[in-house]
Amino acid sequence: MPRMTTLLQSDDGLLYATLADHLAQAIHSGEVRTGERLPSVRSLATRYHVSISTAVQAYRHLENQRLIEARPKSGYFALRPRVSLPEPTQSKPPQAPRFVTTSTLFVDYIKTFDRPDVVNLGALLPDPTLFPNEKLARILGNVARRQARLAGAYSGGVGEDQLRHAIALRGLENGCRFGAGEVVVTNGCVEALNVCLRAVAKAGDVIALESPTYFIMLQMIESLGMKALEIPTHPRTGISLEAFDLATQKKGAVRALMITPSFSNPLGSLVPEANRRALVQLCEARGIAIIEDDIYGDLHFTGARPLPCKAWDRTGNVLLCSSFSKTLVPGYRLGWAVPGRYFEDVVVLKRIGSVFTAPLTQLAVAEYMESGGFDHQLRKLRKTLSGNADRIGELVAETFPEGTRMTRPEGGYVQWVELPAKINTVDLFYRMRELGIHTSPGALFTSTPRFKNAIRFTLGMEWSRKFEQAIARVGATAIELGK
Amino acid sequence: MPRMTTLLQSDDGLLYATLADHLAQAIHSGEVRTGERLPSVRSLATRYHVSISTAVQAYRHLENQRLIEARPKSGYFALRPRVSLPEPTQSKPPQAPRFVTTSTLFVDYIKTFDRPDVVNLGALLPDPTLFPNEKLARILGNVARRQARLAGAYSGGVGEDQLRHAIALRGLENGCRFGAGEVVVTNGCVEALNVCLRAVAKAGDVIALESPTYFIMLQMIESLGMKALEIPTHPRTGISLEAFDLATQKKGAVRALMITPSFSNPLGSLVPEANRRALVQLCEARGIAIIEDDIYGDLHFTGARPLPCKAWDRTGNVLLCSSFSKTLVPGYRLGWAVPGRYFEDVVVLKRIGSVFTAPLTQLAVAEYMESGGFDHQLRKLRKTLSGNADRIGELVAETFPEGTRMTRPEGGYVQWVELPAKINTVDLFYRMRELGIHTSPGALFTSTPRFKNAIRFTLGMEWSRKFEQAIARVGATAIELGK
Repeated sequence: MPRMTTLLQSDDGLLYATLADHLAQAIHSGEVRTGERLPSVRSLATRYHVSISTAVQAYRHLENQRLIEARPKSGYFALRPRVSLPEPTQSKPPQAPRFVTTSTLFVDYIKTFDRPDVVNLGALLPDPTLFPNEKLARILGNVARRQARLAGAYSGGVGEDQLRHAIALRGLENGCRFGAGEVVVTNGCVEALNVCLRAVAKAGDVIALESPTYFIMLQMIESLGMKALEIPTHPRTGISLEAFDLATQKKGAVRALMITPSFSNPLGSLVPEANRRALVQLCEARGIAIIEDDIYGDLHFTGARPLPCKAWDRTGNVLLCSSFSKTLVPGYRLGWAVPGRYFEDVVVLKRIGSVFTAPLTQLAVAEYMESGGFDHQLRKLRKTLSGNADRIGELVAETFPEGTRMTRPEGGYVQWVELPAKINTVDLFYRMRELGIHTSPGALFTSTPRFKNAIRFTLGMEWSRKFEQAIARVGATAIELGK
Repeated sequence: MPRMTTLLQSDDGLLYATLADHLAQAIHSGEVRTGERLPSVRSLATRYHVSISTAVQAYRHLENQRLIEARPKSGYFALRPRVSLPEPTQSKPPQAPRFVTTSTLFVDYIKTFDRPDVVNLGALLPDPTLFPNEKLARILGNVARRQARLAGAYSGGVGEDQLRHAIALRGLENGCRFGAGEVVVTNGCVEALNVCLRAVAKAGDVIALESPTYFIMLQMIESLGMKALEIPTHPRTGISLEAFDLATQKKGAVRALMITPSFSNPLGSLVPEANRRALVQLCEARGIAIIEDDIYGDLHFTGARPLPCKAWDRTGNVLLCSSFSKTLVPGYRLGWAVPGRYFEDVVVLKRIGSVFTAPLTQLAVAEYMESGGFDHQLRKLRKTLSGNADRIGELVAETFPEGTRMTRPEGGYVQWVELPAKINTVDLFYRMRELGIHTSPGALFTSTPRFKNAIRFTLGMEWSRKFEQAIARVGATAIELGK
């Protein structure tokens, strides 16, 4: 067992992550052998001069990575390390905000996934078999008959009370205290993000983002004439608090932070609780609205559901956005915003954007939620996603060029792979498209000329041999392109 | 029968309207008695030095106003003129474009119609009984079961082919030659207008509008940092071609025209065919995109369905927007855009605005359309709307203050009333709101300080005595306010 004589130092003060890395290295190197017992939490804490809770967190992290296992009443034991690639490092975007310009790449990209015959490795379009479609069909049929009159009516602009109530209840379970009256039901999370962004910012304003980030956020910023400021982001712990602090010190420099703290897209990073709390406080103090995309929050592979930033919001400065599209029913287009102090503005923007959200599907989802099936559905889904992450991880390690790095997500729908620098993944995208394989090139996820060697994998497939073959094909083509 | 010695002259070259007015005056004054036969089309044309087709158009117009009736093989006969008020005159907005600022009035206005107990005279929220809700419920239930898998799927961003095909077919019947592939299905007409506006214009651009105009168009322009330029508009023949011509002579002065040529909101005006053609040509020549809101086009009370401006569009410069919300099924939120040469931009904006429109309700509507029930539904609806226009017209004539003017719409969902200048209808709105009566003050329909003495009536009610009482109450309160 290696020793460190000095106190651990960490870039973002995340002691536990540094400690976990240190131990992981020892396991990978063989210094700690498979099956060997690790120090107790108490002796780990003493040895590295950290608190008990930091030691616990470090072990939990290694469990998530399946490098150790906890045996009841015996302690922690090293597992055989899977073939696994090193993780990408923290991103280093340029420090100036910039207007966004969409390339033709985006248009080609969305055109490709409208084709039904492709093997989809890239687009975040879950397989329909992941969802309880038959049960929902029965409920919707019943609701449509019982509430036929709703088809003929203009409903309220904020959504159906029954669904708003169900959303507020889940919020409460996740540590967020908002009432049903604070919820605005939207056409999916994207509409929620859109109205929230327009409620807090106007053309010319600067919006801070993770880097890389969800391309639809960049597109929105472009279409509204705002500027994007990408912040250095770590593939495991998310946005760098130090970098964000530095970038926002000048009053008014940044109008809003658009962030996916839980299993971000495309990195899959998970912002630690301490950093969430710090972000909420920092943004409140500096007049920066937080638009929080929590769409993957329910999809943690292990441990407890991460609390949204909204859980620490005491002033209504966090605009929480989410949806059922990644967990229950993509085809209903049901999302929501809890816009805090921007509620009235969001209501007006929703009204002038799409008037109201169709009520029948809202009632169907509310009934489904009341039936108690949602938690079972989530458990099943998490298992599928986490299994796919393992499979893809192994296949990439086997078939991709030497020097490839890969994230190890602890939840969510994505895995991010960085290939050797000379491999251009836009070329790769077009090459694979010809073969009927859909990949997501890294260039989509930034407003700057970076990530040209990265691709994002989706985890939302019903696994089959065709995905194995497709991944091997991508790997082989990448090796060829790197020559 | 009066004679005119000179050639008829008309402000906007609309000979038929001037001739019709002239004859209407003769009927109202008693110069032509009830039951008396009018000159044949041929002799009318000779007498007034106009073409046969102008004479026919003038008679058709008088028929629409129920001042004459055609008896087969006998000719045209004067009817007893209904008690009717003079029409408002053409609007005179200021000539400079301006940014839009929403008052708290709009927020209060939408809050009021979210209340279920009010007697709604103002908001354009049709009574649910006007629609075939039960039949749609059966179809939706069947579709949901048959196509359960669609609940679990991300569909294409442009909509379901079956519905796009049905929309293209109706378009063809209305003189528009666009294919199913040119249709983008949206969450109601408002989303269609929104994405089209964003596709053609950016912050700072000037958008020309009718005056008064649909308030959601003004709100959109405000929320996007664009400028509104209101154009003089006649309550019967719509936007003034001369004024529009003048306002757009400077290259680049106006980026787009947002217009509802068929039964506009709130005036109910109907732009004559000649003017539609001229507008399309003028806008094409000057690089001004036309965003055409055709949502009321199917709701003509008499005669043939007016052709949309899109029917004359040869270059893809007209972005046609419409929906099923005012004719078939408000609660499904289904609209569409046919954005012509802006198709790709609209597809991207739809994608980043709400990704795609929920497919099951689209398929339900497509099946309903194929069942052939839509034309029957339209006939029934037109009769209700036109009957309500008559009733409201008579009640306003009886109970409103002297000096009141009122439009005589030939289709659509609205009737516009101008009260004597000293009566402030925002005051009236708040007074009536206390009594549980919802009215639409004219101030909502402009970005300028005008129409403070106007209100808009909805025609979409299932008539009952409570509406009579409510209108009388509004009239009495208006008289009181005018003292």
